[in-house]
Amino acid sequence: MAAKKSKKYWVGFDLGGTKMLANIFDSSFELSGRARKKTQSKDGTQSGVERIISVLGEALQDAGIQKDQLSGIGLGIPGPLDPDSGVVIDTPNLGWHNLRLREPIEAAFGCPVFIINDVDAGVFGEYRFGAGQGMRCTVGIFPGTGVGGGCVYEGQILTGKNRSCFEIGHIPVVPDGPLCGCGQRGCLETVASRLAISASAAAAVYRGEAPNLQAIAGTDLSKIRSGALSEAIRAGDAVIEEIVRNGARWLGIGVTTIINLLAPDIIVLGGGLVEAMPDIYLEEVSRVANSRVMAPLRNVTKIVVSKLGDDAVAKGAAAWAEARLNGRTQQATS
Amino acid sequence: MAAKKSKKYWVGFDLGGTKMLANIFDSSFELSGRARKKTQSKDGTQSGVERIISVLGEALQDAGIQKDQLSGIGLGIPGPLDPDSGVVIDTPNLGWHNLRLREPIEAAFGCPVFIINDVDAGVFGEYRFGAGQGMRCTVGIFPGTGVGGGCVYEGQILTGKNRSCFEIGHIPVVPDGPLCGCGQRGCLETVASRLAISASAAAAVYRGEAPNLQAIAGTDLSKIRSGALSEAIRAGDAVIEEIVRNGARWLGIGVTTIINLLAPDIIVLGGGLVEAMPDIYLEEVSRVANSRVMAPLRNVTKIVVSKLGDDAVAKGAAAWAEARLNGRTQQATS
Repeated sequence: MAAKKSKKYWVGFDLGGTKMLANIFDSSFELSGRARKKTQSKDGTQSGVERIISVLGEALQDAGIQKDQLSGIGLGIPGPLDPDSGVVIDTPNLGWHNLRLREPIEAAFGCPVFIINDVDAGVFGEYRFGAGQGMRCTVGIFPGTGVGGGCVYEGQILTGKNRSCFEIGHIPVVPDGPLCGCGQRGCLETVASRLAISASAAAAVYRGEAPNLQAIAGTDLSKIRSGALSEAIRAGDAVIEEIVRNGARWLGIGVTTIINLLAPDIIVLGGGLVEAMPDIYLEEVSRVANSRVMAPLRNVTKIVVSKLGDDAVAKGAAAWAEARLNGRTQQATS
Repeated sequence: MAAKKSKKYWVGFDLGGTKMLANIFDSSFELSGRARKKTQSKDGTQSGVERIISVLGEALQDAGIQKDQLSGIGLGIPGPLDPDSGVVIDTPNLGWHNLRLREPIEAAFGCPVFIINDVDAGVFGEYRFGAGQGMRCTVGIFPGTGVGGGCVYEGQILTGKNRSCFEIGHIPVVPDGPLCGCGQRGCLETVASRLAISASAAAAVYRGEAPNLQAIAGTDLSKIRSGALSEAIRAGDAVIEEIVRNGARWLGIGVTTIINLLAPDIIVLGGGLVEAMPDIYLEEVSRVANSRVMAPLRNVTKIVVSKLGDDAVAKGAAAWAEARLNGRTQQATS
């Protein structure tokens, strides 16, 4: 391909538990190239960094550009991290700890690199390209295996002391409630995550109450994914619908806490469960939140379903790199 | 008194349910004069605005300065308000609604006027003059009749959509819990406010379990204030101590939610209950929060007791007026 020499490309990278994804964007954030690889976290951190560099290189090839045409790279990484030092503190599903990720990537590509929590990247994507455009305060909540969240306030991603924050999955909602993966009890994700919902669904299958889910997935939790739940509901498993609605109502309690605390302009719901069953989520979360928040906050915050697809994290990470380099993150947008 | 002609004085005002307070500060934020009046909210809003103007005038007299020496006025007002438009949306204990407060005060004193939620003013005071100095993220939590809170993030008071926010007293913590004054059930303030604690204490007195509180206040809720609780505990009413500790532990659950969401540098606890029983509050809130937050967030956030006294709201409101006028609110401080 013809070489394009101006330094105008941005790279967004999404590190998932099973796959890693690199996208190249031009200055208008149109996709110019992409690459994917399996994560293979079991091979350790050194191998992991090499695979990241390799998939970034493949995406450059796919776009037909050279590394000296890159303006910057944004890496969306799961788990807590320190965006200022570029250190990944922990990656829950990969087993990588205290990983200095920025330096080797900067050395390999010769451009500035920013690391950002993957959920924050997704929320920044919503703020730049999705339902949160131009909003002063955008919150994103993504129920999945856990329940992730993030907040973009006046163009900045809210961060905690030396780390990413907004761990909405672990706010306490049920005193002495179910045991959580974090070691606590009654965290939001013990009642609202896909894992919690799938566990209840598996029990319903076991009890013989959900014949369609029985046929689709049986009692194996690892097979009861969002698509299977949605399919079973469409096929008529009323108990599965009630289990999902119950999880969505608990998510509404988490949303209530966020509205009472931050009264954001918009809350964007996303992730696999919401993508598979948007109507159930929008209905239950809106209903609970608007009946449960303080009266003066009723209907103040818009609640919507994300329309950004699988590329949201990579695109948000790339846009964050641009925002950091262009100094746009301190600026209110409305 | 000798007139001081340079335009260098700031006024802070604190509108309480029973009294209103105006303080004049010089450019170093040393107190130059003050005045107080009863609020007398029953006389209506027009009379209320006149009383505010009158007490501000008396404070000027006390400081021996003229209104043309004022740089700006900050008004700390209870309840939700819109800081941008200067409209007080509601004042729960005063019965004033949709009050345009900025214009008449600006007209009377000929300087810029800013309105700010009183709790936010107190937290901004902590950030400028108290335990939060130089902190990137300072949260203040004040259990009183309700439970108020606020957050100063990179020098800005976090605000919601067209209004003040951080209504921590109304985050849901007990599913189907006690009825709250807001009409909901199980809000934090139904279990952690002074009102909740005093109601439990009154029941203990009624049951004959708290002879010292019986002697101090009897079963009359309106007499069981923070000082009475503290005195009864010192005199040996073990059940009252356990009731207060239980309330403080619930406050620790609210603090857990804040740390999991924002991981602030510091949380300052204040208000009557905390001032009267600082050791109990510091001990229980720290213990619950540090055992209940996600493991990587343990001991990340400093938890302290406020050292600013009764003037915190007025001083914080005055400092906020200065920050707004000097454009310092968008600037990170560390």
